[in-house]
Amino acid sequence: MSLDAYRIETEPFFHAVGNEIAQFEAAHADRLPMMLKGPTGCGKTRFIEHMAWRLGKPLVTVSCHEDMTASDLVGRYLLEAEGTVWQDGPLTRAVREGAICYLDEIVEARQDTTVVIHSLTDDRRILPLEKKGELVTAHPDFHLVISYNPGYQSVLKDLKESTKQRFCAIDFTYPDAATEAAIVARESGVDAATAAILIRIAARSRNLKGSGLDEGASTRMVINAGKLMARGVTLGEACRIALVQPITDDPDIRDALSNAIAACA
Amino acid sequence: MSLDAYRIETEPFFHAVGNEIAQFEAAHADRLPMMLKGPTGCGKTRFIEHMAWRLGKPLVTVSCHEDMTASDLVGRYLLEAEGTVWQDGPLTRAVREGAICYLDEIVEARQDTTVVIHSLTDDRRILPLEKKGELVTAHPDFHLVISYNPGYQSVLKDLKESTKQRFCAIDFTYPDAATEAAIVARESGVDAATAAILIRIAARSRNLKGSGLDEGASTRMVINAGKLMARGVTLGEACRIALVQPITDDPDIRDALSNAIAACA
Amino acid sequence: MSLDAYRIETEPFFHAVGNEIAQFEAAHADRLPMMLKGPTGCGKTRFIEHMAWRLGKPLVTVSCHEDMTASDLVGRYLLEAEGTVWQDGPLTRAVREGAICYLDEIVEARQDTTVVIHSLTDDRRILPLEKKGELVTAHPDFHLVISYNPGYQSVLKDLKESTKQRFCAIDFTYPDAATEAAIVARESGVDAATAAILIRIAARSRNLKGSGLDEGASTRMVINAGKLMARGVTLGEACRIALVQPITDDPDIRDALSNAIAACA
Amino acid sequence: MSLDAYRIETEPFFHAVGNEIAQFEAAHADRLPMMLKGPTGCGKTRFIEHMAWRLGKPLVTVSCHEDMTASDLVGRYLLEAEGTVWQDGPLTRAVREGAICYLDEIVEARQDTTVVIHSLTDDRRILPLEKKGELVTAHPDFHLVISYNPGYQSVLKDLKESTKQRFCAIDFTYPDAATEAAIVARESGVDAATAAILIRIAARSRNLKGSGLDEGASTRMVINAGKLMARGVTLGEACRIALVQPITDDPDIRDALSNAIAACA
Amino acid sequence: MSLDAYRIETEPFFHAVGNEIAQFEAAHADRLPMMLKGPTGCGKTRFIEHMAWRLGKPLVTVSCHEDMTASDLVGRYLLEAEGTVWQDGPLTRAVREGAICYLDEIVEARQDTTVVIHSLTDDRRILPLEKKGELVTAHPDFHLVISYNPGYQSVLKDLKESTKQRFCAIDFTYPDAATEAAIVARESGVDAATAAILIRIAARSRNLKGSGLDEGASTRMVINAGKLMARGVTLGEACRIALVQPITDDPDIRDALSNAIAACA
Amino acid sequence: MSLDAYRIETEPFFHAVGNEIAQFEAAHADRLPMMLKGPTGCGKTRFIEHMAWRLGKPLVTVSCHEDMTASDLVGRYLLEAEGTVWQDGPLTRAVREGAICYLDEIVEARQDTTVVIHSLTDDRRILPLEKKGELVTAHPDFHLVISYNPGYQSVLKDLKESTKQRFCAIDFTYPDAATEAAIVARESGVDAATAAILIRIAARSRNLKGSGLDEGASTRMVINAGKLMARGVTLGEACRIALVQPITDDPDIRDALSNAIAACA
Repeated sequence: MSLDAYRIETEPFFHAVGNEIAQFEAAHADRLPMMLKGPTGCGKTRFIEHMAWRLGKPLVTVSCHEDMTASDLVGRYLLEAEGTVWQDGPLTRAVREGAICYLDEIVEARQDTTVVIHSLTDDRRILPLEKKGELVTAHPDFHLVISYNPGYQSVLKDLKESTKQRFCAIDFTYPDAATEAAIVARESGVDAATAAILIRIAARSRNLKGSGLDEGASTRMVINAGKLMARGVTLGEACRIALVQPITDDPDIRDALSNAIAACA
Repeated sequence: MSLDAYRIETEPFFHAVGNEIAQFEAAHADRLPMMLKGPTGCGKTRFIEHMAWRLGKPLVTVSCHEDMTASDLVGRYLLEAEGTVWQDGPLTRAVREGAICYLDEIVEARQDTTVVIHSLTDDRRILPLEKKGELVTAHPDFHLVISYNPGYQSVLKDLKESTKQRFCAIDFTYPDAATEAAIVARESGVDAATAAILIRIAARSRNLKGSGLDEGASTRMVINAGKLMARGVTLGEACRIALVQPITDDPDIRDALSNAIAACA
Repeated sequence: MSLDAYRIETEPFFHAVGNEIAQFEAAHADRLPMMLKGPTGCGKTRFIEHMAWRLGKPLVTVSCHEDMTASDLVGRYLLEAEGTVWQDGPLTRAVREGAICYLDEIVEARQDTTVVIHSLTDDRRILPLEKKGELVTAHPDFHLVISYNPGYQSVLKDLKESTKQRFCAIDFTYPDAATEAAIVARESGVDAATAAILIRIAARSRNLKGSGLDEGASTRMVINAGKLMARGVTLGEACRIALVQPITDDPDIRDALSNAIAACA
Repeated sequence: MSLDAYRIETEPFFHAVGNEIAQFEAAHADRLPMMLKGPTGCGKTRFIEHMAWRLGKPLVTVSCHEDMTASDLVGRYLLEAEGTVWQDGPLTRAVREGAICYLDEIVEARQDTTVVIHSLTDDRRILPLEKKGELVTAHPDFHLVISYNPGYQSVLKDLKESTKQRFCAIDFTYPDAATEAAIVARESGVDAATAAILIRIAARSRNLKGSGLDEGASTRMVINAGKLMARGVTLGEACRIALVQPITDDPDIRDALSNAIAACA
Repeated sequence: MSLDAYRIETEPFFHAVGNEIAQFEAAHADRLPMMLKGPTGCGKTRFIEHMAWRLGKPLVTVSCHEDMTASDLVGRYLLEAEGTVWQDGPLTRAVREGAICYLDEIVEARQDTTVVIHSLTDDRRILPLEKKGELVTAHPDFHLVISYNPGYQSVLKDLKESTKQRFCAIDFTYPDAATEAAIVARESGVDAATAAILIRIAARSRNLKGSGLDEGASTRMVINAGKLMARGVTLGEACRIALVQPITDDPDIRDALSNAIAACA
Repeated sequence: MSLDAYRIETEPFFHAVGNEIAQFEAAHADRLPMMLKGPTGCGKTRFIEHMAWRLGKPLVTVSCHEDMTASDLVGRYLLEAEGTVWQDGPLTRAVREGAICYLDEIVEARQDTTVVIHSLTDDRRILPLEKKGELVTAHPDFHLVISYNPGYQSVLKDLKESTKQRFCAIDFTYPDAATEAAIVARESGVDAATAAILIRIAARSRNLKGSGLDEGASTRMVINAGKLMARGVTLGEACRIALVQPITDDPDIRDALSNAIAACA
């Protein structure tokens, strides 16, 4: 079971905002553990897919969650007819075979998953499989990358300081309006003028962040609106379906967003 | 084990209130993940059954609950005589074979179930079976749909913002009185006049929402009352059994509802 | 393993207070899901046993509790010598073979058990065995009935509104004094005069409900007192053992009940 | 595996305080479920052992605790070489073979254990083994008895009202001083005068209940002090070791108890 | 697998402070359950080892902890090639074969472990193996001993009153200065003068208990300091490493202890 | 499976600040249990690797975490074709074969892991494998070492006093500026002048500890910044990526750190 299925064949579209590509390449050269920081839907996942393609490395992505344990990452024994058989988890496979391992929102996982990566993030670069009694030395190509959304953390749920200090970090945010409109036009199929209108509406939504909205409309949501319009849905309906109704049920916020749609159309 | 048992042979009755059918068809054309929003018993489940019939796709429905884990959706290893055997869960079957997968009230499930759908809701459209070490690429016909009842969410139990932003949303509510009466007459077997009386009583009940009732009588409850009457139960008894006693024990609310029944009869 | 052991051979004694038998028969004709509401020991279990006997249907009763899971109702895999074997739970057996399934105090069970019945309570009448990958269509005779004690529910522990709305409900309460005395005489073996005295004492006890007692003496407790008297225990001792000591340790309430016993004797 | 090991061959010493033996015999004649109420160490366990001996029935005693589940009472599947084999739990064995089953402090157990006994405590007298799909009808000799310490219950941890109402109850308390001294002399081997002194000290301890002690010295503790004296330990040391040091570390209470010992010696 | 490995061959050094040896022997003669009370590191474990040696009995010691269950004490089924095989836990082995069983800090364990010992601590002296369906009668030599640190208990975590009352208790505390210095010199290898200095420093530390320190330096810690000095570490460094740094990070307390070291040196 | 893979072949670089090497050697001579105390990234792990190399002992390191149980340390039964087989955990292997066992941040683990080491930290030096019924006597070379970060402990999560008292402790902190600059130059490849600048920036960061930062930049983070510069990243970008963005999202703190970078460059 090689990692070839985890190689990305075609270039994922990514529009750089700053030096993030060169910065990541420098960190990758020394395999410095990386943290990609930024809000939902601003392109962190796309960036790591682009970098994996650019660097020609397989990419093992794991979406972390509250019930994820170290065993889900590292591996476990399975009972086969001839007895128990060890099965490597996705992290162990990436460590052994030399992939970029991307742990998406690792802060969601239980503490044991964050501790299990400690010995991979200092100069030891080893992964102890304690249940198997094996010490795996990382393949020279193994590179650990995690994502982190600053807006979601709380006192109760945050990376431990001793984990944070093991990573370099690159900040991500929404691109500027012209760039984002170009992305929306390219990915949804609407024309440039329509994309610009949708971006103006999204900007209004983002201004409401903290005044009733937890987060404004992401680039992904604007692309969804564009796709609905490309299928013949009107601007107003498309914005309500893709930008408003998924994220709020508050009548006042819905009104404010409806006005924004009307004002921008 | 094909999904043919999950195909809907006969048209489920659905009375559209607005453009919801066209909107869903547009979203379905691009397989945009959909969220159906609205109160209990207003027809969300009937709508998705109707759309699955209309689009000729198998429909895999999963009622989510607090103890549901990612394994319940994705699959697990079973121990057979010849060792452990992987068994796809309902989501994986829908992903592999190209069904509409309807996750009813996904917010009830544990967090790991909401994270597991993330990679299915962006352009990757893949489902990693981490315990099996397999990446399942979604069948082109796979379409993910969830339901969401805004009245039930709380700070402690809500979809994460990063999940909400991955969906388009259509709002559902009760139909207008004439439409609802037609539905009640059709489904319960009472005549139009009786159905209209029952709808007037239900409207009174809905007006009490927030003043002692968590929710008013749903269309489904009115149909139940109609069915009892079609079996010979009196209007008063049928309304008490089907519309009042199931949802409240408060003497004042019961009195108010009794008065409403008397006034409408 | 057929359900014949679940058929009730001899008529369980039930003394109707109102139209509950006809109402239940009307609901049963359309298999409308039923909720039996009322306080402890007033005859809900006896009623459903009577109706199962009257309708000639097997009755599968499940006493729900805090640790009950959906698997306890639906079934699970057991490991046999030849590998894992699926074993239907009591609900699945009732669904497949057409029994009345009575879930006693379902509100006690974990949330997954209440969600598992949802698809059985609308017009789908199906039970998805998600772990087995099977959709069970309900036998035409399957009828779902639950009990619900309004005095026990709290904000933290109640049926979800979306569950309540799926049921019709019949209210149960204690019978009038003459009826209850007849029941007590019949079931305990004491004479009519003694039964009447015991019922007067029970009435005093029920008046204390809310003033120090969570619930007054149920019909079942009065029968217990009668049985002790039929074995030679004095009225005072029998009432203390069967009506007072089991339900309160508060000296004032015990005094009040002792006075009631003395006054009625 | 018969229940003969659970028969009590020699008469356990029990000194009746009131009519408890006749009351229990009356309840036993109809197999009315019994609750023995009273503080720690006052003789509830000895009473049920005495009654089991007197009635010639095997006695299955289960000490309940927080982690006890219904399976611990009812039974479970064990994996044997030839597959899974059902093993009856202690309650099921008592139900099948006709023993007195004594559930000591059942309120400590999880809720599912209290619900599992419900169908054994009304006229059904059946025990559904839901995991096995079997309905066990109780042996005519089966009799259910539970203990309950009123001093320990709290709002959070108490029997449900619907459970309490299924039982008759007998109160237990400490015997009068002369009786208790006779018991202490008999069981510890000290002479009557010494036993009387020890009982006076215990009475002082019981007076401190609520003023710094959760409970005063039980009869069992006084017997322990007597046994130490019979082995040559002085009165003061024996009382400190058996009556004071086990139950309090508070210097003031210890002083008060020391004074009591000095005053009575 | 006999308990010979649990016999103590050479006399463990124990310096009695009072009558504790005679008191324990009197309790042991009747196998009265014993509780050893006192602060950390004052010699409770050494005492029970000494008594086991003195009485010529094997000693089974179990360190209790939060996750310990009754099965860890009593035993469990293991799956072997020929099916499941019962394996006695340490308590069961001690009960069957007649050892002293020392449950260290039993209050740390889950409630089920404290209940499991109840029937071993009254005149029944039986251990029901409920999962195995066996009643083990204790070997005449079986003696149950537990330890209890009064400084650690809280309202949330304490032995139940009904458990405490089943035990006799002996108090332990630090020995007087001369005795303790003799112990330190003997066990660490430092001369008497150095031992006396170390004890004076420890006395200062113990005076800070409650004023910033949870507990003062135990005898064990003083022995550690002595051992470091015997290896050439200076008095100041040895005291900081063994007496100060392990138990406090508070700068003021550290200063106070440094002053104490300087003053005593 | 010998512990040879756990031997450290080449000298790990360690720059001593005080007498810590001699102190550890003295403690090691008597195998006194050691606690290494200090903040994240100041060299505790490097120190123990250096000492293991210096003393020629294998080093078994276990990163503790919230979900770690005693079984993870001690061992467990695995199901093999011929039945269950015991597998030693990492602690047991170190105890049997005579390694230094380093439990990193043991306070993170569940309580049972801290209790399991108690009998290894007094003169018994035994490890009871309770599930296996085996008493393992420690190899003479076995030495137990734990790490402890004083900045992380809280009332809710700290070592028990009875555990702390079993250890000697050595304090660790950041080295002085010249030493740290030498370390940074050596490990990252930047020249001495650049290293000195980076250390000045780190010093500013450490001054912010308690005024908005939980901890200042560790030596490890400064080395990361140096590595990025050695790959061509500018000083400003390298500091932001390695020293600022991983540990804070607070705009004011980020400004303060940016000013510090500008001031030092």
